[in-house]
Amino acid sequence: MPDWADYLDANRPRFLEDLSALLRIPSISALPAHATDVQRAGQWVADHLRAIGLADAQVLATGGHPVVYASWTGAPGKPTVLVYGHFDVQPVDPLELWDTPPFEPTVRDGRLYARGASDNKGNFLAAVAAVEALLQTSGRLPINVKFFLEGQEEIGSPQLYDFIPAHRDLLACDFVLNADSGQWSETEPALAMGTRGICMVEFTVHGPKADLHSGGFGGAVQNPLHALAEIIAGLHRPDGSIAVAGFYDDVAVLTSEGRAAIAAVPDDEEEFKQQAGVDHLFGEAGYTTLERLWVRPTLEVNGMWGGFQGQGSKTVLPAEAHAKITCRLVPDQDPKRVQAAVVAHLKGHVPPGVSLDIDARAGNTRPYTVAADHPGNRAAADVLREMYGREPYQTRTGGSVPILSLFQEHLEVESIGFGFALHDEQIHAPNEFFRIASFERGQDGWCRLLERLGH
Amino acid sequence: MPDWADYLDANRPRFLEDLSALLRIPSISALPAHATDVQRAGQWVADHLRAIGLADAQVLATGGHPVVYASWTGAPGKPTVLVYGHFDVQPVDPLELWDTPPFEPTVRDGRLYARGASDNKGNFLAAVAAVEALLQTSGRLPINVKFFLEGQEEIGSPQLYDFIPAHRDLLACDFVLNADSGQWSETEPALAMGTRGICMVEFTVHGPKADLHSGGFGGAVQNPLHALAEIIAGLHRPDGSIAVAGFYDDVAVLTSEGRAAIAAVPDDEEEFKQQAGVDHLFGEAGYTTLERLWVRPTLEVNGMWGGFQGQGSKTVLPAEAHAKITCRLVPDQDPKRVQAAVVAHLKGHVPPGVSLDIDARAGNTRPYTVAADHPGNRAAADVLREMYGREPYQTRTGGSVPILSLFQEHLEVESIGFGFALHDEQIHAPNEFFRIASFERGQDGWCRLLERLGH
Repeated sequence: MPDWADYLDANRPRFLEDLSALLRIPSISALPAHATDVQRAGQWVADHLRAIGLADAQVLATGGHPVVYASWTGAPGKPTVLVYGHFDVQPVDPLELWDTPPFEPTVRDGRLYARGASDNKGNFLAAVAAVEALLQTSGRLPINVKFFLEGQEEIGSPQLYDFIPAHRDLLACDFVLNADSGQWSETEPALAMGTRGICMVEFTVHGPKADLHSGGFGGAVQNPLHALAEIIAGLHRPDGSIAVAGFYDDVAVLTSEGRAAIAAVPDDEEEFKQQAGVDHLFGEAGYTTLERLWVRPTLEVNGMWGGFQGQGSKTVLPAEAHAKITCRLVPDQDPKRVQAAVVAHLKGHVPPGVSLDIDARAGNTRPYTVAADHPGNRAAADVLREMYGREPYQTRTGGSVPILSLFQEHLEVESIGFGFALHDEQIHAPNEFFRIASFERGQDGWCRLLERLGH
Repeated sequence: MPDWADYLDANRPRFLEDLSALLRIPSISALPAHATDVQRAGQWVADHLRAIGLADAQVLATGGHPVVYASWTGAPGKPTVLVYGHFDVQPVDPLELWDTPPFEPTVRDGRLYARGASDNKGNFLAAVAAVEALLQTSGRLPINVKFFLEGQEEIGSPQLYDFIPAHRDLLACDFVLNADSGQWSETEPALAMGTRGICMVEFTVHGPKADLHSGGFGGAVQNPLHALAEIIAGLHRPDGSIAVAGFYDDVAVLTSEGRAAIAAVPDDEEEFKQQAGVDHLFGEAGYTTLERLWVRPTLEVNGMWGGFQGQGSKTVLPAEAHAKITCRLVPDQDPKRVQAAVVAHLKGHVPPGVSLDIDARAGNTRPYTVAADHPGNRAAADVLREMYGREPYQTRTGGSVPILSLFQEHLEVESIGFGFALHDEQIHAPNEFFRIASFERGQDGWCRLLERLGH
């Protein structure tokens, strides 16, 4: 048993305390009221990295939510990896659906419940614990390691589009190890071959100047809620496909080889339904569930509202109605082009009697793919095979990690997914959790990976 | 000049203070948190009626929000009228659109701004002031007067469906004078010949058991927001008509005489657009604006919501989506039958992958009509002709006054509209106001009407 393994075993409870301390900071990047919490979380991470021996650990300003950088570069001639993760988290509403408060980490049945436990505080702190263990037991690391942890992943990393090109030298590396990643199941490992891109559009339907009495005006004035429903309903066809002209123009054709690679991944629809909490699946006709999630684009309404939402009734014909939309993109879609297509569709489908105010939001991300035979992927595959006793599946993820395309574009490096999240952990939803076993497996895995990369 | 006129003139400022005192009580019947405010408003009204000489004034329990009753019955052989109004008000959101706080009555440019100023506190207190003036100057009233003022009009008077039949003797009268009514313009009087009925349906679209990450699940799971939009969009046809099977079955055919009567009322579409605050009107094809408002039924969404509504973005695929619907009904539609048709339509149009939870809410009201030659209407027409110097238009209102059908059914009496609200007063919307001139004209009008009914 290597020294680092003993060290990890001896320090498991304290690692869990460290994670809990970070989880208590409500670092919700989407809500301006929590901006100081995001800053506090960054400061906590930097202080912690310094405490485990990375003397240059520091919080760096971005013009928005900060990032944290730290490095150990005492292995000249060895590869340099950039370990990526994020200390910001998603909002927590609806709060009433949480069994325990989102920022009071609680252990139940071997799971640590808290917002950010899996996505991503627990996953990147596993890498930090591994670096601590290696440094404390051997006084050095097998390779050069830079940490780059950000505070704006959940809002699309808006400032990093400028920050990363402006810090090319600081962040220079051979490749990225992305801790914002996961495995297939508790017994089946996976290597992430790609993520979907994203673009966002938000719009308001404007009707009457002020809310009207639905008795006094209803029937003679367009109701913005009716108009909103008509617009949203018109974005999809009954077969689940997207009705926006040009939406699919640049989607890479799904070859029979591509189909076969996806079909090789076990796709347990019953388990997926259970994870999703639905009785019936629904999606674009002609594709399997994994194809729908991995290689087909989506257009999803994330929020929609207008009029009276309280208890009882208010017979109002509201002045406005609102919707927030995100599209998930696949190779070779261009986020700006898809966003423009959605905006053009909206402008071309304004129901009579209302007007639209469209916000083509920033925060676009290209879809990302990496080759299976990249040296980083080969090393990660070796480690995972060793730990799980089986070959990792080559998977993709339906979500988006904007930073991966930024690394590719500006640092000219690929990103290798190395995280221990699992599909059922309620990320972005109430009752998010991380298995303590995953946290510990992550600590072991990172030690093994850094060692293997140093051979 | 009659004595009551001098008395009114001398007491105008105090009447305005009385109204302001009542407007300061936030008696929002739709919000349970304001239940005690509704009760306080009822107590204020009862105390005030006692103070002006109606010794039996009292708050009566209903099992829900209370009612206030008071009477003066010292004119045997003369008619007995029941003066109706309501001291509850609509909710005030969106609060940020109010120029001054809704429960801090503020005078600007001869208008008193406050929630309830026009609907209905100002309008029924004009009648109360008139009764005070007559009692104070002549020690008696020209006819017998009962006040019946309720605290649940804005939520459809749910408890009055039982209360009115249970209090037939107390409320017995020759006809009702309904202060929850209005005039055509500052210079043109109107007699209300009818109101639309109403029925309500609220429903929830249930998708996943909990909110999901739209990246991890989007494309493979039905989004309840998409399903909601599809359902709502399917309730109307592109021509503005309602797509619910059977919805129009019992609608009385609009005869050429009926059309002509409505066409006789001046219908200034430009002014209506200005009141509505819209550039373009929209409604069922084949009908004029007044026909759409008065003799055609509607189905309006009053509120619709789901997913993330905060600032920024949250890439969620929500577990639920919600909508509140009201239908306005015309002769000879039956609210229960229309409600059942809407429920059947919803059950028959559930998109794949979601389920519906439908609440066919109580608070149904039949459409109401009264004959133009009813003695009460004839007396009101005489008074209005005298005050305005012209014949009143025979109008209808698009709104609903549930109580009118209850009076018709249980007291076997008709209701005569006698109020001084005008179309532009932002009732049910931010910045509701009542013209001080209308308040004073109402005081005069009620004195004249009671005198004329006593001849």
